[in-house]
Amino acid sequence: MLDVCLLGCGGMMPLPGRWLTALMLRYNGRSLLIDCGEGTQIAIREKGWGMKAIDTIAITHLHADHIGGLPGLLLSMGHSGRTEPLTMIGPARLPETVAALRSIAPEVPFPIEFRVVSGAEEALEWNGCTLRAFRVSHGMPCYGYALEIPRAGKFDPARAAAIPRIHWKKLQQGETVTDGEKTYYPADVLGPARAGLKVTYCTDSRPVPAIAENAKNADLFICEGMYGDPAKQDKAIENMHMTFEEAAALAREARPRAMWLTHYSPSLNDPEEFIDLARNIFPETTAGGNGMTATLRFEER
Amino acid sequence: MLDVCLLGCGGMMPLPGRWLTALMLRYNGRSLLIDCGEGTQIAIREKGWGMKAIDTIAITHLHADHIGGLPGLLLSMGHSGRTEPLTMIGPARLPETVAALRSIAPEVPFPIEFRVVSGAEEALEWNGCTLRAFRVSHGMPCYGYALEIPRAGKFDPARAAAIPRIHWKKLQQGETVTDGEKTYYPADVLGPARAGLKVTYCTDSRPVPAIAENAKNADLFICEGMYGDPAKQDKAIENMHMTFEEAAALAREARPRAMWLTHYSPSLNDPEEFIDLARNIFPETTAGGNGMTATLRFEER
Repeated sequence: MLDVCLLGCGGMMPLPGRWLTALMLRYNGRSLLIDCGEGTQIAIREKGWGMKAIDTIAITHLHADHIGGLPGLLLSMGHSGRTEPLTMIGPARLPETVAALRSIAPEVPFPIEFRVVSGAEEALEWNGCTLRAFRVSHGMPCYGYALEIPRAGKFDPARAAAIPRIHWKKLQQGETVTDGEKTYYPADVLGPARAGLKVTYCTDSRPVPAIAENAKNADLFICEGMYGDPAKQDKAIENMHMTFEEAAALAREARPRAMWLTHYSPSLNDPEEFIDLARNIFPETTAGGNGMTATLRFEER
Repeated sequence: MLDVCLLGCGGMMPLPGRWLTALMLRYNGRSLLIDCGEGTQIAIREKGWGMKAIDTIAITHLHADHIGGLPGLLLSMGHSGRTEPLTMIGPARLPETVAALRSIAPEVPFPIEFRVVSGAEEALEWNGCTLRAFRVSHGMPCYGYALEIPRAGKFDPARAAAIPRIHWKKLQQGETVTDGEKTYYPADVLGPARAGLKVTYCTDSRPVPAIAENAKNADLFICEGMYGDPAKQDKAIENMHMTFEEAAALAREARPRAMWLTHYSPSLNDPEEFIDLARNIFPETTAGGNGMTATLRFEER
């Protein structure tokens, strides 16, 4: 079971009633935060998910609306009792930028370990899952993230019959077992791997193939849609963002189960006004909003 | 007429429904902001006062809850069209700290001019008024601010009778006039200076004499009250803050017309629970809240 919360849906600057875009993922008692703009810590409190379980913060890029809330969050995580190391993932210059921001938050009672990503794509590990960082196009190093939770195959008694019953449980739990000269592997008792869960998050970017590739068959694709009005297409190109229709075209290609739009321009008062333009292209589009939540469960399909 | 808005009333971290403590003052079309924590720009928008008129930002001290919102505010002021210089006032290392925070806000379309304060007290000028910075006690350089708006005396026709009538208007407007070999001064046509307006703001500090001295006869004294419960007196001392009762004792000494408490600890859920403890010492105490506003007008007294 994976809980996903879109903490906010704004771009550029936080507004009354619209937190900046950030994503929180909870899985097996640990939390991953993607982006941390000004006010993100308030949105986390509003949601009530707690900060202490956040062990990793991934940053898409180093613009203020995606990292400006970090010093405050680090201090609040410290006040909430965290002493275990925090991992931070992000593009080049992340460590230097965090160091600069920490000029106002020097007293944080836990170490920060950095994992700088570069190149077109990198597969990282988080909480037994794969967190894939993929380079997008925003005029400065910027990464989208896809979290993939694998799921082993079903226990297959027919295949297991050749193995002493005493080893079944461990093998089912993913352990390799040695018995005398024989070694048994989990795959020996399991059927083919089943569909896991996948959430893909992308902001800020022009539409590029890497986004659709990394959103392929996702359970949930969260994508920026800075502008709803097609008349703002030029602005989208100039500012290296997307319109609702461009985001929907990526979704049509990637075929996720659902897409949430986010990172609205402050000039976009009501995303619902333009949502049908996206739905005409990709029907399973929803206009993301503050604290929008989904619980994704493994299922047979 | 001076408009005063306490934008938030929290200390340490912003909370849902409680912005961090900051003060905005509007006078003659210009605005002064004191402190800028995470979320202060949202509080300004919520109030609807606009950012473009802010020409000076004074910072009490360099803790994150008092300056963490600066990069976002600078960017938003830029987006609102400001190109005129901005003045920033604050303690030593303010320029270095702002430079560090601007690593995520490099593109601000106006210059920032710094006025670093040091020593026990400094009188600065803002918008024809005196802005007095006074050193308080918080374990790091920290300043309170008192804004004093002077008011000239009434026009006195008896005193003016000796001066050609053609010069009266300019003299009344505060200009000095030269007529042949004679020079006339505003004071030549005015009675004694009348009471002006005074607002004093102090956070974060232990109670020290400079606070009461600078709040003396203020129209409004805004003072931190981190803890309401007298049982937290030890914590107030340890963390270099004040209890409601300590703030009220300063007010009893300074005799302002009114005092607003602010900068509540996140552990203080309902300031009203303890407000009578302060009122028993200084009856004109109010528990400050988000967006609390006063309009102060000149009056005869």
